[in-house]
This record gives sequence, C-alpha cells and structure tokens, in this order.
Amino acid sequence: MPKIVDHDQRRREVTAVAADLVAAHGRSALTVRNVAGRAGFSTKVVSHYFADIGDLLHETYDFAARRARDRIDIVLANDPTDVEGLIRAVLPLDDERREDWRIWFAFWSEALASPALAEEQRERARNITRRITTCLRNLVAAGSLPAEADIEHAADRLGALIPGIAAEAVFDPVRWSPTRQRRVLRDELRSLGVRIGGADDVV
Amino acid sequence: MPKIVDHDQRRREVTAVAADLVAAHGRSALTVRNVAGRAGFSTKVVSHYFADIGDLLHETYDFAARRARDRIDIVLANDPTDVEGLIRAVLPLDDERREDWRIWFAFWSEALASPALAEEQRERARNITRRITTCLRNLVAAGSLPAEADIEHAADRLGALIPGIAAEAVFDPVRWSPTRQRRVLRDELRSLGVRIGGADDVV
Repeated sequence: MPKIVDHDQRRREVTAVAADLVAAHGRSALTVRNVAGRAGFSTKVVSHYFADIGDLLHETYDFAARRARDRIDIVLANDPTDVEGLIRAVLPLDDERREDWRIWFAFWSEALASPALAEEQRERARNITRRITTCLRNLVAAGSLPAEADIEHAADRLGALIPGIAAEAVFDPVRWSPTRQRRVLRDELRSLGVRIGGADDVV
Repeated sequence: MPKIVDHDQRRREVTAVAADLVAAHGRSALTVRNVAGRAGFSTKVVSHYFADIGDLLHETYDFAARRARDRIDIVLANDPTDVEGLIRAVLPLDDERREDWRIWFAFWSEALASPALAEEQRERARNITRRITTCLRNLVAAGSLPAEADIEHAADRLGALIPGIAAEAVFDPVRWSPTRQRRVLRDELRSLGVRIGGADDVV
C-alpha cells in the first residue's frame, strides 16, 4: 500500500528546500530539477505538488514572509509598544533573517515583470508600515512618544529604512554588521522622538 | 564595402536596448534573442559584441550606474554641499531614475549568487556613502552642519535610506509619490542637523 502523504506537509517540505536554494544561489537556481535533487524526490513529485516554478517561487516568498510575520507577532505579543523589536525582527541580523532578504531580493526581479507579484510585495511592505503605525500609537498611549508626533510620517521613515538597511547589509555584511544596523535603527528612533532603553551594541 | 561600425558605439546601442528590456520586464526577459529583436540586429551581431548574457547584464548594470553617477556629478559640480540634490539624483523620482532601480533590483537577484556581481553592488553603495560623507564635510566647512555632527554615521543613515525609499517607491509608486519620497528625505536631513531650504513639495 502506498504511504499516505499529507499534501500540505509535502508542499512545506519542498518549499523549505526551495527557500534554501534561492537564498543560497538566487532565482536562477530555482528549477524543478534542483529542488527535486536537494529534496531527495523525483522531479515528478515536485511537479505534482506545484503547478509550475512560478507557484514554487511564490510559496518560497510566502515562506519567508510568514516566518517574518511570526517573529513580529512574538515581539508584539510580549510588548505591543516595542517598535525597535518589531523592526529588528525583519532586519538581516542573523542567518534566518538574512535568508529571508535574499529570498525577497530574488523575488523582486520577478516582481518587476509581474503585476500580481508586485502587488504581493507592495502589500507586505504596507503591512509592515501599518504594524509600525499601530506600535507608534501604542507608544503615544504609553507616554513614550510625544502626542504631537506625526505617526504616519514616522512610520513611512521607519518603513523605508528597513529595506534600505537590509540592502546594505545583505551585500556588505562586513561593513554593515548587526551592531551598525542596530545603531542606525536606534538613532532613527531617537530622531523620531521614541524613548528607547538598553545598550546600542546588543544584537 | 561594409559599413565601418564603431565597436564601443555598437555595444552602447545594444546595452541601451537591454537596459529598457530589463527595466520593463525584469531579468528573465534578458535573452540574446529578445535584445536582438528589439535592437533590430541578428542574434549573431549581439553575440559578437558580448561574450555572453552575463556580460550584457553587467553592461546594463553599469549603464544605469554611470547614468546615476553623471547625475550626481552635475549636482555636485554646481554645489558641492548639496547633499539633498545628491540623494535626489539617485531616488526614483522620474522615469529614468525609476528605470535605474528596476535594473539594479533585477541585477540583485543575480548578485546573490555571484561574488563578483555582489562586489560590484557593494562598491557602488559604498561609493555613494563616500560621496555623501564628502558632501556632509563640505556642509560642516560651510557652517551649515554643526561641527560636532557624526559625519560617518549620518552618511550611513542616508546611505541606507536611499535603497529603502527606492524599494518602497518602485513597488508602490502610488503611495510613494515623489512628494512623499522627498519629504522623507528632507525630514531625515533635518534630523541629522542639515539646514535645508526650499519647499518640501518640489520634485
């Protein structure tokens, strides 16, 4: 009797392999053959679970996006005013977060040619900015940010800083160490009037 | 008698076509066949002037990088303290500058897998940060920035803001209008202590 394989579970396994592949070798490494070889499946199995390579790339993007969302959820569940923690959750400060950015950058090239993928990228960015906005409002309510602060505009600045630091750090990890990333973020938060504690050099 | 064709001139013509193609349709659209078709040459001609598609992608990246450098040169030749103008010269505020970013984003995917291309991207980013640093020093000399400002760190913040605003604006041009981009930049400059004139809404 054939082994019963959970459809979603199998898709997740293949997606995790695809994510590693894209993060390590870029978009062009994402082929059914490469994924099958690494996952230890036949190309037929991979083709069975994914409509095409576009479907798999899309899943890979979502894989990284979900992981990032989960990290943010954990930070905000612990402290809904922790805007520094929220942003650190999506900066390339460790291997997993660096891998997320490498996947998103690989995806951007494809998104330039696809309105549907561009929409996905746009929504993800807007969603982060919305979460920053909520977090800043919580800071005002907690008295840690002046009530007259322009929240929406501050969220724009922080929202733009994230992919900016990420681009610098992914391509120049020696110069853009976690310490440097963190310092730029903290100084930006201070400029915006956010009162922050802790030391600058803790990653 | 065959027409004498200038080698560099022909390479430039093909590169301009490749640049349009990548900017419009992403990295995957860059094939010898597509470029030849658009340029009105045979694939043989394109193959004669470029070692391979990697060579052509590289030229395309340089094409956008040179164009950006030229825009910066013009700004700084006019006023070596104009840090706002310098940064505006590389933000996606019009069609040409948006096209540059679309080319760079398309290239990033490839650079993730190639140390040589990643090095190129890294050097370009470092070079912009160096030019910002020089510009900020000129501002200090001119008395338009406090002498105690941490120039290197300010240049890091501005250097990171550039690809960040670009990423937001390329994928979300409606929300990230030129006015919004410009406002974020000006407020960042003000936060860093740079005295700037003019209105916020001039693109």
